[in-house]
Amino acid sequence: MPHLYDFESADGSDKDLLGGKGAGLAQMTALGLPVPPGFIITTETCRMVMRENGIPEGVWDEVDEAVARLEAKTGRTFGNGDSPLLLSVRSGAKRSMPGMMDTILDIGVNDRVVKRLAEWSGDPHFAWDVYRRFIQMFGNVVLGVDEHRFQEVLAGARESSGVEDDASLDAEDLEMVTRRFGEIVEEERPGSLPEDPIAQLRESIASVFASWDNPRAAQYRRLNDIPDDLGTAVNVQMMVFGDLGEDSGTGVCFTRDPATGSSEPYGDYLPRSQGEDVVAGIRNTLTLDRLADLHPGPHAQLLEVMRTLETHYRDMCDIEFTIERGSLHILQTRVGKRTGEAAVRLAVAMVDEGLIDEATAVGRVEPAALEQLHRPRISPDERTRALVTGVAASPGAAVGRVAFSSNEAVAMAEKGEPVILVRPETTPEDIHGMAAAFGILTSHGGKTSHAAVVARGMGKPAVTGAAGLLVDASARLAQVGPVDIAAGDVITIDGTTGRVYVEPVELIEPDNIPELSRLLSWADEIRTMGVMANADTGEDAARARERGAEGIGLARTEHMFLGERLGVVQRIILAADAEERDTALDELESLQVADFEALLEAMDGLPVVIRLLDPPLHEFLPDRLELEQEALRRVRAGRPIDDLQKMSEQVSRWEEVNPMLGLRGVRLGLMMGNLYRMQARAAVTAASNRLDAGGNPRLEIMVPLVSTVEELRRMRVVIEEEIATAVDAGKDLEVPVGTMIELPRAALTAGEIAEEADFFSFGTNDLTQMTFGLSRDDAEGLFLRDYLEQGILSSDPFQTLDQEGVGRLIRVAVKEGREANPGLVVGLCGEHGGDPKSIVFVRTLGLDYVSCSTPRVEGARLAAAQAELAFDQPVDR
Amino acid sequence: MPHLYDFESADGSDKDLLGGKGAGLAQMTALGLPVPPGFIITTETCRMVMRENGIPEGVWDEVDEAVARLEAKTGRTFGNGDSPLLLSVRSGAKRSMPGMMDTILDIGVNDRVVKRLAEWSGDPHFAWDVYRRFIQMFGNVVLGVDEHRFQEVLAGARESSGVEDDASLDAEDLEMVTRRFGEIVEEERPGSLPEDPIAQLRESIASVFASWDNPRAAQYRRLNDIPDDLGTAVNVQMMVFGDLGEDSGTGVCFTRDPATGSSEPYGDYLPRSQGEDVVAGIRNTLTLDRLADLHPGPHAQLLEVMRTLETHYRDMCDIEFTIERGSLHILQTRVGKRTGEAAVRLAVAMVDEGLIDEATAVGRVEPAALEQLHRPRISPDERTRALVTGVAASPGAAVGRVAFSSNEAVAMAEKGEPVILVRPETTPEDIHGMAAAFGILTSHGGKTSHAAVVARGMGKPAVTGAAGLLVDASARLAQVGPVDIAAGDVITIDGTTGRVYVEPVELIEPDNIPELSRLLSWADEIRTMGVMANADTGEDAARARERGAEGIGLARTEHMFLGERLGVVQRIILAADAEERDTALDELESLQVADFEALLEAMDGLPVVIRLLDPPLHEFLPDRLELEQEALRRVRAGRPIDDLQKMSEQVSRWEEVNPMLGLRGVRLGLMMGNLYRMQARAAVTAASNRLDAGGNPRLEIMVPLVSTVEELRRMRVVIEEEIATAVDAGKDLEVPVGTMIELPRAALTAGEIAEEADFFSFGTNDLTQMTFGLSRDDAEGLFLRDYLEQGILSSDPFQTLDQEGVGRLIRVAVKEGREANPGLVVGLCGEHGGDPKSIVFVRTLGLDYVSCSTPRVEGARLAAAQAELAFDQPVDR
Repeated sequence: MPHLYDFESADGSDKDLLGGKGAGLAQMTALGLPVPPGFIITTETCRMVMRENGIPEGVWDEVDEAVARLEAKTGRTFGNGDSPLLLSVRSGAKRSMPGMMDTILDIGVNDRVVKRLAEWSGDPHFAWDVYRRFIQMFGNVVLGVDEHRFQEVLAGARESSGVEDDASLDAEDLEMVTRRFGEIVEEERPGSLPEDPIAQLRESIASVFASWDNPRAAQYRRLNDIPDDLGTAVNVQMMVFGDLGEDSGTGVCFTRDPATGSSEPYGDYLPRSQGEDVVAGIRNTLTLDRLADLHPGPHAQLLEVMRTLETHYRDMCDIEFTIERGSLHILQTRVGKRTGEAAVRLAVAMVDEGLIDEATAVGRVEPAALEQLHRPRISPDERTRALVTGVAASPGAAVGRVAFSSNEAVAMAEKGEPVILVRPETTPEDIHGMAAAFGILTSHGGKTSHAAVVARGMGKPAVTGAAGLLVDASARLAQVGPVDIAAGDVITIDGTTGRVYVEPVELIEPDNIPELSRLLSWADEIRTMGVMANADTGEDAARARERGAEGIGLARTEHMFLGERLGVVQRIILAADAEERDTALDELESLQVADFEALLEAMDGLPVVIRLLDPPLHEFLPDRLELEQEALRRVRAGRPIDDLQKMSEQVSRWEEVNPMLGLRGVRLGLMMGNLYRMQARAAVTAASNRLDAGGNPRLEIMVPLVSTVEELRRMRVVIEEEIATAVDAGKDLEVPVGTMIELPRAALTAGEIAEEADFFSFGTNDLTQMTFGLSRDDAEGLFLRDYLEQGILSSDPFQTLDQEGVGRLIRVAVKEGREANPGLVVGLCGEHGGDPKSIVFVRTLGLDYVSCSTPRVEGARLAAAQAELAFDQPVDR
Repeated sequence: MPHLYDFESADGSDKDLLGGKGAGLAQMTALGLPVPPGFIITTETCRMVMRENGIPEGVWDEVDEAVARLEAKTGRTFGNGDSPLLLSVRSGAKRSMPGMMDTILDIGVNDRVVKRLAEWSGDPHFAWDVYRRFIQMFGNVVLGVDEHRFQEVLAGARESSGVEDDASLDAEDLEMVTRRFGEIVEEERPGSLPEDPIAQLRESIASVFASWDNPRAAQYRRLNDIPDDLGTAVNVQMMVFGDLGEDSGTGVCFTRDPATGSSEPYGDYLPRSQGEDVVAGIRNTLTLDRLADLHPGPHAQLLEVMRTLETHYRDMCDIEFTIERGSLHILQTRVGKRTGEAAVRLAVAMVDEGLIDEATAVGRVEPAALEQLHRPRISPDERTRALVTGVAASPGAAVGRVAFSSNEAVAMAEKGEPVILVRPETTPEDIHGMAAAFGILTSHGGKTSHAAVVARGMGKPAVTGAAGLLVDASARLAQVGPVDIAAGDVITIDGTTGRVYVEPVELIEPDNIPELSRLLSWADEIRTMGVMANADTGEDAARARERGAEGIGLARTEHMFLGERLGVVQRIILAADAEERDTALDELESLQVADFEALLEAMDGLPVVIRLLDPPLHEFLPDRLELEQEALRRVRAGRPIDDLQKMSEQVSRWEEVNPMLGLRGVRLGLMMGNLYRMQARAAVTAASNRLDAGGNPRLEIMVPLVSTVEELRRMRVVIEEEIATAVDAGKDLEVPVGTMIELPRAALTAGEIAEEADFFSFGTNDLTQMTFGLSRDDAEGLFLRDYLEQGILSSDPFQTLDQEGVGRLIRVAVKEGREANPGLVVGLCGEHGGDPKSIVFVRTLGLDYVSCSTPRVEGARLAAAQAELAFDQPVDR
C-alpha cells in the first residue's frame, strides 16, 4: 500500500485512511473546486511511525516523487526556480482534535528562495514576511524555540518603526526581523534550521507525526474517547498566499449562520493575511458583503463553492479560503460547529429543502444543546472581564444582588430584588433560597453538586466550585483575592461558561424556536424509550409536560419537607416517643396531600411516581458546627446559649459520620414509625381526591434505598394497606409499587427484589457513588477534577454512566429482574437520565424509560431517538 | 406415610422426620435405656398443618391408637382407671430452638383423675400438685392466660401458710390453689379448659404445632438461619414423676464437664421436683455425689447410661432424667453445649480415647470459642448487678479507672494505674489511649465499630454501644440514669457479655490449654487455605506468629501515622506546596523504615503485605466541632482563639461530608505528591536492611481503594521504580505488588485490574459498606441492631459475609481476575477473615488465604480446616 495519495487520486470517502482534512481535500478536488494541489500521507503511515518509532522506509522516496508531481502540475519549483513552490504541512486525524497537533506553513523558503520569491511576486515585503513566518513557525513548532523570543523581536520592530501591527512593517524591517529570527534559532538550537527545502519538508512531516503523541494531544484523546492508535494523516499542499498585496486575503466562512441557523452564509475575510491571522483575531475582519464589494468575482465563486459543498455534504460546512491576487483557492472544509439554536434551525430547514430526511435531522442535533435554547444568556461578544471562573454547572446567565443565606435571599426577593444566592455550598435547607434566587453561585462542588443539580432542576443558572472565591456566609462577605463582595452587591453569573462578573452584564433573552417542536415530534416518532421528568411541584410538572414529559418518573418528597415545614420534620425525627411523632406526622399529612394533588393534576392521565422520603437525616437537622459558631457569637455578645446547647445535644443523637451511608431511604421508613404510612396515605388520598374531581390520576409509589428484599416486602405491606383502604372505600385506583435500584446489593439481588416490585427505577447517582465508593460532592471538591484532567478517569461518572462498573450492575439487574417478574417496568431516574451518551447506552440494556430534570426533557427525547437510530444500526460518531 | 411412630418403631437416625428430641428418644429406646414409652408425630405432619392451616385428617385416629398402645404397654389408663396414665407433649425440631416452642406436662388429669392419682400414689399432695401444674401450664401455654395471675395465687397461698416454696404447701393448700386456678382460667377463657383428657391431649398437640409459627420462634429461626418450612415434631410421652415423695426427683447431667472439659460427669439433681424445676433454679440442686449417697442404685444406673450414650454418640451428652420412687427414667438426651475450653479438651480427649478421629475433633470445636481461651474473664457465678449492658464487642473482662480522653488514659497508665477508656466512640487518634487502656467502653458503635475492631486487634476487652450511657468527654463525666461515673472511678467491663459494672469485679485468669495446640496441628494438616494475620506492629506480628499466622496479610500503615507523628501527618496534608509536603514526608520516612523492619523481622521468612495509607483524611485532622467547642470554652475564660480559628480554616478546606467516600486510599496516593512513593521506598529500604542483616524479608506492597485499573497502573509504576532502585543497588528483592478489592467497581472490573496486580486482597469491610450503602459505624448506632432484631437482616453483614450480594462480587472478581492473570494470589483481609461462617463460604470461592486479627488467628486455622471438611463433603450442621 502506498504511504501517500495525491488529492486527485485519493478516495475521499476513506476518512479512516486519509483523516478528516485529507478526505475533505480529496473530495473537493474531485468536485472540481479550486483546491491548491497536494498529497496526503496516510494514517496507516502514522501508525507505522508509532510502531517503528521512526519514519518507515520508502516514505521519503514517495514524498520526493509526489513533490516532483506537484512541480509538474504547478509549473513551479520547490526550493528554486523563477516561480518558487512553497508547501504547507498540516495534521488531520479522522476525528477533529483542534489545535492539538502541529501545522507548519511556508516550507521551502531560504536565503536564496526569498529573493526568487521577491522577484516572482514583485513584492519584497511579501517575500520577507513569508520567510519571517517560516522561521518563526518552524523554529517554534519543529524546533521548540520559545515563541516569546520571536514576539519580543516583532514588538521591538513595531515600536522602532512606530506601527501597530506586523503587517505594517516595511520590507526592510521584515528582513531585519527575519535575520534576527534566524539568529535566535541558531542560539537556541545551533545548526538545526535546515537551509535545504527538502530537509525542511521532511522535518516538518516528522514533527507532525510526532505531535500525535504529544501529552496535550494524548490527554485530549483520553478526554474525548479517541483511540490512541487512530493516528493522524499529514497533508502537504502547495501554499497560496493571502498576503500577496491588496488583492489577496484569507477568510473563513460557513455556508449558513452557525450562531442563529439562518440560511444566509456567514463569513469573515481579512485582506492581506495568511490563514492563521483570521483565527488569531489580530485585526478586525470584513464581512462577506464587504468581500463582494472588494472582489465580486471571487465572492460569487465562493458562494457557488458553498452551494456545491452543502449539496455534497448535505450539511452546513465550514470553509477556509484564500484569495491570491484575485483568484479563489479553497484550503479546507468540514462540517461546521454550531450553537444549539442553529443546530435545530439548520436541521429542520434542510429537511424542508429536501437535503436530508427527518431521521438524519434528528441525528444532527446535540441533545445537550437544547438546554441552551430556553435560558437568558450573556452575548458571546461580551467583553467584560470575569472576576473568577468556576464550573459551568447550569446553563444560562443571571444578574442579581448577592445574598449569603437563603432567608436573606427570600427576604430580598420578596422586595422584588433579583437575587444571586452565594454560598460555600447548598443543602436542601437552601431550597427556598434557591427558589427565590435568579442564580446560584457556590465556592464548592461540581456539576452534580446539590447546587448544580437543583439549579438545573429549577432551570436556574448556576456556577459552582468557583475556586478562589472565599465565602464567609456568617460575615456576609465573599472575597476573590483583593476584591470584596458584600451582601447586596450586584454580580452576574454565566452558567454556560462558569464566569462570574462583579458588575451587571447585559443578558440576551432567547427567542422561541418553532423548529424545535417539529424536530422533537420527529424524534418522538423514532424513539421507543419513554421520557419522563423528575419534578417535585405542580408548577415544575406542568413545565415538564409542556416540554413533552410523559409523566413524572421521580417526585422527591424530601423537597416538599423543607422551608417552613422543616420545624415539623425536625419534631418527627427528634420525637421522644411514637405519640409525639404521630402528632407531627398528622400535621404534615394534609400538606403532603396538597403536594401530591398538584402533581397528579399537572400530569393528569400520565404516571406520577412518588418516591417516599429519601435523603440523609442531617439534611433536616441543624448543623452542629453552625450551632457552635452561633454560640460563640452569642457568648461574645453576652447572650445566653442554652437553647443552642439543648438543640445540639438532641441533634448529636442522630449525627452520622457518613450520612450518605446512614439512616435514609427505606431505613427511615422502617425505623421512623408511621412516616412512610403517612406518605403513602397522603398519596392515595390525593389520588382519590383527583378521582372525585373527575381526573385520571396515575399514581405510583416508589421505595428508595432498598438493599434487601425484606425491606421492600415490609414497606409494601404498609403501602398496600393504604391503597386497599381507598379501594375498599370504592375508589377505582390501581397503584403500582416499585423500588429504586440504587445500591449495588439491590442490583445484585434484583431477581428477589423484582418479586416484590412492579417497577424498578435505577437511581444512578447513588449507584455510581456506591459502586465507585465516591461521594460526588466530596470528590468534586477535592480530586475528581484532577482525576479527569490527568486522565485517570476518562469521563465524569456522575455525568456519563460508567458502563463497565455501574452499567454492568444495571445489566444484571434488568436481566434478572425481568426473568423473575416478566411484567417489570424498568426505568432510570438519576442525573444520567438526561445525559445523551448514557441514554444511548441504557437503550442497549432495554430500559423502558428515562426520567430527567425538566430542562433536560427535550434533550432526552432527542437522545432517545438517537439511541434508537444507533441501536438499529451502529453508527460511527 | 404414618403421621406418628412409637419410640420403639421409629428410625432414630432420621432427624429430619423426627426432630432432634424424637430421634434421641427413639435411639435411647433402641439402646434399651429406661425411656418412658411414647410416640413422635412427625415434622412432615407439622408441614401439613402449616399448609392446610389445621390438623390433617387421620392424625387424631393415629393418636388415639398410639395412646391405646401406650395403655397396653404400661398397664395404665389415660383419663381413668386405678393406675392413671398422664402424658407430656413436647416440641422437637431438627435443630434445637431452646425455649421457643411449647411444652405441656401432666396431661390427662381432671377432677376425677386427681382422686385416682391420690389413691394410686397414696399421696394427695402429689396428686393436687400435678393437677395444679397441669391447669397452670395448659392455661398459660395453650389458652394464653397470663402467668402472673397464677403466680399471685401461689404467692398468696405461700404467705397464708407461712412457707417459702410451693413444694412446702400441703395437700389442702394445693387443692385450694388448684380450684382457684380453674376459676381463673374460667374467668379468662370461659369454657375452654377441657375436662376430657383426649381433648386436653389434642389441644396440646395442636398448640405445639402452632407454636412453630409464633413470632418469637419465627424470629429465632431467621436469626439462626433455620428454614421456616422445617417444621417441628411433637413428642408424646408417658409422664414419670419426680415429685412422687422423697425417693423421687429430677435431674440434668452431662457425661463430662461442659465448663472445663474434664472427663468427670457433671450433674444437678433436685429431689421431689418435676423437670422444669431444675432449670428454673428455684431451689438449690444437689451434685451427682449426693445422688450417689441418696440413691446408689439409680446413680450407678445413670453412670452406665452416660457411658452408653457417649459411646453411641461419640460426644459429650446432656441428659434429662427422673427418678420415680427409686426407678431411673431417661427423658431426653442431646449433644451437650460447652465452653470453648471444654470443647477443645473434650475433642482432644476423645481422640486419645479412640472415640473419634482427628478430623471429627477438628469439626467439633466452634472456632469463635477459641478467642475465649486467652482472656481474663468474669466468673459465670458472678452475682454483682450490671449497671448497663452494651454490645459484647471484644471478649474478656477488665477492671480499671475511668479515663475520658486518650491523653488522660496515657497519663494514668504511666502512673501504673489500670485504665478503662470511656468515649462516645473512638477514632484512630485514640490509638495511643486504647493501647494504654486495659479495656474500652463506648456509648456508640457495634461489634465492628472502630473501638471494637481495634480492641479485638489489640486483644483487649471492649463493650461498645452501651445504650443509656451518656458520655460527656469534655465534662469528664458519664451518666446512666441517676448514676454518675467520674474520671478516676473504678469500673469493670465484660466484653464477653457486654456488661458494665460500677465497681471492681473479680476476674479469673484463663489457664493455658495444651490440648489446643494439638487440635490446631490437626487442623493445619487438613486445611488448604492459608491463615495470615492483620498486624501493624512488630509486637503484634510476633504474637500472631505464636498463634500460627503464616504471615501478615494486612499491615495498616495508617495506624503507624498516629500518636506523636500526627503533627507531621497534618503538615503533609495541609502543606501549602510540594516542597513543604516533601519536607514533612522525609521526616516520616525514617520512622516508617523502622516500622516496616520490625514487621519483617517478626515475620522473617513469611510474607508481609504492607498496605499503603488508606483511611479518610478527617481521621488525621482535628475535628472542627471540637475546635469550636474549645473556642467557646476559651472565650468564656477570656483567652484568645486565633490559633483555633486558623486551624479550623485550614481544616475546612479538607472537610468531607462523607469521608468514607472521599479522598482516601489510592486517591491520596495520587493526589498527595510523593506520599505513596515515600511509603514504598521506606518498605523497600526496610526489606533491604533486613537482607543486610541476614534476614529473609518477604515484602509485598498493596494499594488500597482502587476503583479503576488506571489508579493501580500509575501507582504501580511509582512502586516498581522504588523496587528497581534497590534491585539495581544489588539487593536480591522480589516484591509482589497487589491491590485491595474493596469497592464494587473493583470487583466488577477485576479482569482489567488483575493485569496490573500480583495479588488481590478482598477488603470485605468496605466492600460490604459500599455494596449495602451502609456505614457500619453509623448503622450500628442508629438502626442495624433493630434490623437484626426485627429480622429484616438475618445476620450482621459486617460479621458474616453477605453471600448473595458481597459474595457474588467476590465470586465474579476471583473468576475474572484469575482468568486474566492465572498466577493471581487471592486472599481476604476484612473482619470476615476471622469469621468461621465466612471462612467456610470463601473456601468455596477458591481463595488462597484469609487474614484476620491476631486473637482470631487460631479460630481461623480451625475454621479453615472445617471449611475443607465441609468442602470435601457437604455436612449437615
